[in-house]
Amino acid sequence: MIQAKGYAAQTNKSNLAPWSFDRREVGPHDVQFDILFCGVCHSDLHQLKDDWFPGIFPMVPGHEIVGRVVKVGDQVKNFKVGDLAATGCMVDSCGHCENCKQDLEQYCFENPTFTYNGMERDGSSPTYGGYSNTIVVKEEFVLRISDKLDLAATAPLLCAGITTYSPLRHWKVGKGHKLAVLGLGGLGHMAVKFGVAFGAEVTVLSTSPKKEADAKKLGAHHFIVTSDPAQVEAARGSFDFILDTVSAEHDFNMYLSLLKTDGTMICVGVPSNPAQVSAFSILMGRKSLAGSCIGGIKETQEMLDFCAENNIVSDIELINIKDIHQAFERMEKGDVRYRFVIDMATL
Amino acid sequence: MIQAKGYAAQTNKSNLAPWSFDRREVGPHDVQFDILFCGVCHSDLHQLKDDWFPGIFPMVPGHEIVGRVVKVGDQVKNFKVGDLAATGCMVDSCGHCENCKQDLEQYCFENPTFTYNGMERDGSSPTYGGYSNTIVVKEEFVLRISDKLDLAATAPLLCAGITTYSPLRHWKVGKGHKLAVLGLGGLGHMAVKFGVAFGAEVTVLSTSPKKEADAKKLGAHHFIVTSDPAQVEAARGSFDFILDTVSAEHDFNMYLSLLKTDGTMICVGVPSNPAQVSAFSILMGRKSLAGSCIGGIKETQEMLDFCAENNIVSDIELINIKDIHQAFERMEKGDVRYRFVIDMATL
Repeated sequence: MIQAKGYAAQTNKSNLAPWSFDRREVGPHDVQFDILFCGVCHSDLHQLKDDWFPGIFPMVPGHEIVGRVVKVGDQVKNFKVGDLAATGCMVDSCGHCENCKQDLEQYCFENPTFTYNGMERDGSSPTYGGYSNTIVVKEEFVLRISDKLDLAATAPLLCAGITTYSPLRHWKVGKGHKLAVLGLGGLGHMAVKFGVAFGAEVTVLSTSPKKEADAKKLGAHHFIVTSDPAQVEAARGSFDFILDTVSAEHDFNMYLSLLKTDGTMICVGVPSNPAQVSAFSILMGRKSLAGSCIGGIKETQEMLDFCAENNIVSDIELINIKDIHQAFERMEKGDVRYRFVIDMATL
Repeated sequence: MIQAKGYAAQTNKSNLAPWSFDRREVGPHDVQFDILFCGVCHSDLHQLKDDWFPGIFPMVPGHEIVGRVVKVGDQVKNFKVGDLAATGCMVDSCGHCENCKQDLEQYCFENPTFTYNGMERDGSSPTYGGYSNTIVVKEEFVLRISDKLDLAATAPLLCAGITTYSPLRHWKVGKGHKLAVLGLGGLGHMAVKFGVAFGAEVTVLSTSPKKEADAKKLGAHHFIVTSDPAQVEAARGSFDFILDTVSAEHDFNMYLSLLKTDGTMICVGVPSNPAQVSAFSILMGRKSLAGSCIGGIKETQEMLDFCAENNIVSDIELINIKDIHQAFERMEKGDVRYRFVIDMATL
């Protein structure tokens, strides 16, 4: 086994603390890479606290992982020692279901193996994430990243990036569309960058007026303060799409009223409580409330290549892993521009 | 003015009772037709009871109206005295907004004028519906019906028919699709007929096992008793579309779990309380919850023509208008196969 070290929570009530654990030996199809940077996703905190479902402890969070290859199995074709490499939210899937065969591993009928808080395909070996020094991943789930981009700022593309890129591509959002991005956080700021890059007219919807300057700097064309009833009223019926990145409770009916006829509101955030959707909110105007979850491996690679060609990365604050709890606190208050990334050299 | 008689409720607490009222004189663009049959829609009862919003009283319900033309204005081109004629849920709209121009009068930016419990474009003249002997309607909102179909059984096409036909057409449901119809009532039984006519593989989802024989008789290929957990479990992930015709409270997350990846659940019923939609129910499998409201005038005519060509009508129970309250009671219990229609000769 490979001795790894990282930060883990021993229970759903524990703080993260240094922990040593084993990773599997590098198999013939595996790539081992040493982790240089790992993004801090809001879902790390949700899972540490068992907000969504009972977790597997000890838990080493982190699924926005970039690093450099240190070992490859003898069947590995596309990576060699010294290459940059990355892994996102998944490290495996069944590989044979209809969705896996269509490059939609995130919707694997037998569930994908999540990078942490999951079980390997054997059903009994827990997965440990990127708040650690090294990782072993099946080649098909390792992504190539460009050395032209800032490496730390590339890490959040692996979750925040693909989570917003994928639905915008799936719904073919682009030129001629009015896109609203709800929430300007880790996901939202990436949605603005992609929406603008795809040619859409982008409006940021936020409760916080002080985010307007940042929204414009990120490329947004318009900004609406959703706590101002007059601004909301003026925006009724105006968007083709709303990409909803908010995980806190919010009023879905109000946002649905901002869609045009045949408009679609796409949820990528996961509030703890169900959305309350009044029938009239979708019947009047033939509207849709849709969901989307990360993206498949092929599309994640496509997104990373697109980012390299278009010089798109996340706006980040680099932190020492010792400051992770302070980062969690600030993240919960929305006080981060726009993603914390752990410098794994501080481990 | 034209003296009309019908059944009206004087307040939201009153029963329906005979009432005389005025209709406008036939203007140059108007068609007057004497009402022969009028369908009884669940929304009649919702509106009489102010379930959705405060109504306009006295209220003469009814928006599934068929009859014979007795007078036309001098600018009317497509109807003459003696023709059959019909009117559904709308009698007017602004005519100039983007939706009206695209034959989507039901989503008129300034709201359509509903056939009853609405106001004419003047904003002050209440509309009265089809539980009456005669009606005056602007020509553009009068539909042509075929004399080849049973006239009483044609009436429900004007609401139950178009409400199910329109979304199935909009989402292009047909050959190769697995369609589930949720609820086998007035709307649901029409959805089965249309789904089958469009070539879909149709499954009826119902809490009531005793509806299976009827569902099959209507053309459904399969039947699932949704109160049986084993049948529900076996159906997970199996439908491309669910057409949800239910206005009573129901578990949206359970039904969403029956959709395939990229599947769509289309709501045409209006429960009094908001749907509770958990984020995971739509994120996992990139699913959509959509709504649809009746259909435009052009599409309603297309549906009526399709029904004439394909010999499709509603299954009805013809009633005397004096028995309307008994019909309401039975309708509330789902005890009707599948639509009550008032024989207006009994007025």
